[in-house]
Amino acid sequence: AGPVREPNPARVLALGFAGVILLGGLLLSLPFAWEPGHRVSFLDALFTATSAVCVTGLVVVNTAETFSTAGELIILALIQVGGLGIMTMSTLFAILVGKRITFRERLLIQESLGQLSPAGMVRLVLYVAAVTAGFEVVGATLLTLYWWQAYDMPFGLAAYRGLFHAVSAFNNAGFDVFDSRRPSLERFAGDPVITLTIGGLIVAGGLGFTVLADLGRRLRHPRHRLSLHTRLVLWTTAALLVLGTVLVAAGEWSNPATMGRLSPGGRFWAALFHSITPRTAGFNMLPMAELTNLTVLATILLMFVGGSPAGTAGGIKTTTLALLLATVRATVRGEDELVLMERRIPTLVVAKALALAVMAAGLVLAVTVGMLLWDGHSLEATVFEVVSAFGTVGLSLGITPELTAAGKVLILLTMYAGRVGPLTVAVALTRRGRRPRAVRYPEERVLVG
Amino acid sequence: AGPVREPNPARVLALGFAGVILLGGLLLSLPFAWEPGHRVSFLDALFTATSAVCVTGLVVVNTAETFSTAGELIILALIQVGGLGIMTMSTLFAILVGKRITFRERLLIQESLGQLSPAGMVRLVLYVAAVTAGFEVVGATLLTLYWWQAYDMPFGLAAYRGLFHAVSAFNNAGFDVFDSRRPSLERFAGDPVITLTIGGLIVAGGLGFTVLADLGRRLRHPRHRLSLHTRLVLWTTAALLVLGTVLVAAGEWSNPATMGRLSPGGRFWAALFHSITPRTAGFNMLPMAELTNLTVLATILLMFVGGSPAGTAGGIKTTTLALLLATVRATVRGEDELVLMERRIPTLVVAKALALAVMAAGLVLAVTVGMLLWDGHSLEATVFEVVSAFGTVGLSLGITPELTAAGKVLILLTMYAGRVGPLTVAVALTRRGRRPRAVRYPEERVLVG
Ligand SMILES: [K+]
Ligand SMILES: [K+]
Repeated sequence: AGPVREPNPARVLALGFAGVILLGGLLLSLPFAWEPGHRVSFLDALFTATSAVCVTGLVVVNTAETFSTAGELIILALIQVGGLGIMTMSTLFAILVGKRITFRERLLIQESLGQLSPAGMVRLVLYVAAVTAGFEVVGATLLTLYWWQAYDMPFGLAAYRGLFHAVSAFNNAGFDVFDSRRPSLERFAGDPVITLTIGGLIVAGGLGFTVLADLGRRLRHPRHRLSLHTRLVLWTTAALLVLGTVLVAAGEWSNPATMGRLSPGGRFWAALFHSITPRTAGFNMLPMAELTNLTVLATILLMFVGGSPAGTAGGIKTTTLALLLATVRATVRGEDELVLMERRIPTLVVAKALALAVMAAGLVLAVTVGMLLWDGHSLEATVFEVVSAFGTVGLSLGITPELTAAGKVLILLTMYAGRVGPLTVAVALTRRGRRPRAVRYPEERVLVG
Repeated sequence: AGPVREPNPARVLALGFAGVILLGGLLLSLPFAWEPGHRVSFLDALFTATSAVCVTGLVVVNTAETFSTAGELIILALIQVGGLGIMTMSTLFAILVGKRITFRERLLIQESLGQLSPAGMVRLVLYVAAVTAGFEVVGATLLTLYWWQAYDMPFGLAAYRGLFHAVSAFNNAGFDVFDSRRPSLERFAGDPVITLTIGGLIVAGGLGFTVLADLGRRLRHPRHRLSLHTRLVLWTTAALLVLGTVLVAAGEWSNPATMGRLSPGGRFWAALFHSITPRTAGFNMLPMAELTNLTVLATILLMFVGGSPAGTAGGIKTTTLALLLATVRATVRGEDELVLMERRIPTLVVAKALALAVMAAGLVLAVTVGMLLWDGHSLEATVFEVVSAFGTVGLSLGITPELTAAGKVLILLTMYAGRVGPLTVAVALTRRGRRPRAVRYPEERVLVG
């Protein structure tokens, strides 16, 4: 018997996502998925399916008004399949990476999940699904009870909306089923319960599965030491939440079109929510078109960074940002190794962080050039839209429904690349060993700066 | 006798620049420097002096209409002192860097310049001044003859303008003495002689002194092998010129407010010039306020990259960009060392490039946030202005004269930081050796992407 050909996980991932998107696009372009009196073109259906599977949340049509309940449930299923697939695959890659490099992390994850046999894979998916279901059930229950009691929604409607938005929030999808008069979560601006429930689900989903597993272990074993990765993710996430809240508050505090009408407490909650949602949930409580320049800039930056690895969030990731900043500190201090929280970081990890950030910036710039050539919106709205699509955020300054066909195709491809790209790159980096060079070239220095 | 205290070159540089700026600001705020009937506030005079010494070219008032010939000559002197100071100091740092690391480059430069004794320093300044004078005299002669003959300017005026713009171009200063009806070089849009003369001076000044010295050596000794640094600078510069020309042509080819009225040949020259000038000259041939979004985006990117080290250009530098892209290639290929043009690049050089780029992005973002808080212009024009100031470019979408006092101070400080900052950082990196750590921490991996 010849050797068994190993499947290429990067190809499996890319084709699997494409297959689910195509299936979803076909389903959403059938009349049973539409509200009576509405039509959805195949391009719009495909765009919606891509946005759902890639847990982005950019929409060319209002979801509640255009799609029937059946259509909305298809979208919800696409979000859950996409989110679960991303969580599972990225955790799997994390294990593969860990397998090659860190003995300790491998032990941690393998102890929970077993070996990477087919049985271990099934166990991994079930484990991730159980954690996901736990968060979603708790979130849906809280939302249902609150909307039923505090907003006088009928119980059935409150339960449906509670489930939809809990799933959408934990998977960082950003889809909503409120009408276009006050879309997304605008009617809940400044509400502390909604901010904390939906914001909490977003943050939890964005921390990544390895961090959730590490934290869960700490809860069960108080003497368990959190990994460097977990500590780095938690500190960077906290710092970005504080920074984002301050910037959004500075931008909107006295803007009568956004926060100006809220109480000081309400303004705080709205600022906190608008610091959470760009990383990379995509709900909004404040009307996006009315935000000041400062908030728009802060939102673009937060969207570009995004959440943490091995979760449902997009962007270049918190750890990447932390490593870039740590490299600056080390270079300015004249240190020749990168030490963070009393641990040395391997040079190859820093190179990977740098490569990811540069590739992300390059992709955003290239797509923006294409959008400026083939879709005539302002530079600000275009950059915002492209960063939002790449980071699978789903916020928009309002141009998504007005995109040309070329613009829709570009944004659709950017959502796909932003979701699948970094993962497949991670696979490639994981599977390929260091190639020894045939030639050892002489060293030569170059001036920079 | 105790040990002689060595002067700190970073402090000498920063204070020297500040001193020249202050002197220039005082001179330009005296009435003899103004055209009759004009007044210049001390803040505006200080802004103009900063812009001249830092060879930026952002102006709050039209130079020709506001300053007398005496004032213009003071500005020209400030440009020359600033440019020569930058060329000399950055070359000196290049030698210091080379001294610590590359034996070959040290030999190359020391052979021309002698040891770094006080006498060697004087020789270095004279050498740089001679090369500068050579380029400026040739450029001024060509411009004078052309303007005298082809544009029917009186010979004296042509000679004055030729000298002024040759000095301004080689030092990447971007100051002009044309009136505000058609400011900068707008009256020469599409002129091949002006494009090639002024564009050539800009590119030569932007290549950096070590590259010019290396090329000069090649001219005298045809078998001399160009250094990796020289080859990297030349290739990156060429690639950016081609890319910039294509993007500007794509953005403006049929824009009736800019290139539309020119012949196809004229459009090519104008596109080439507008690809050269953001790196980091600051002249313009096309009205900046009329540029399309695509050209604005391309200009911002080119301004951020800027020119090459050890010259009069600003920005993060061509070599920094090349090293970032090479790191991406190496990471995607799974290689664990950075090889470029058959030479290995030391890891510390890559870390320095990364640190510079991240610091530059951070500074631009921080100043932009300040500008949005204290100076109410659009996000696009503000980012453009801040990148232009940081890169010491001098292009503007038109808001410079409309800046508030707070905005002027912020932009003034950004010009100074953009000019002096990278150099002092370079000194710090050069002078401080690798610090061995007292503790050797264990290695731990972090997930990115
Ligand atoms: K999203
Ligand atoms: K300049």
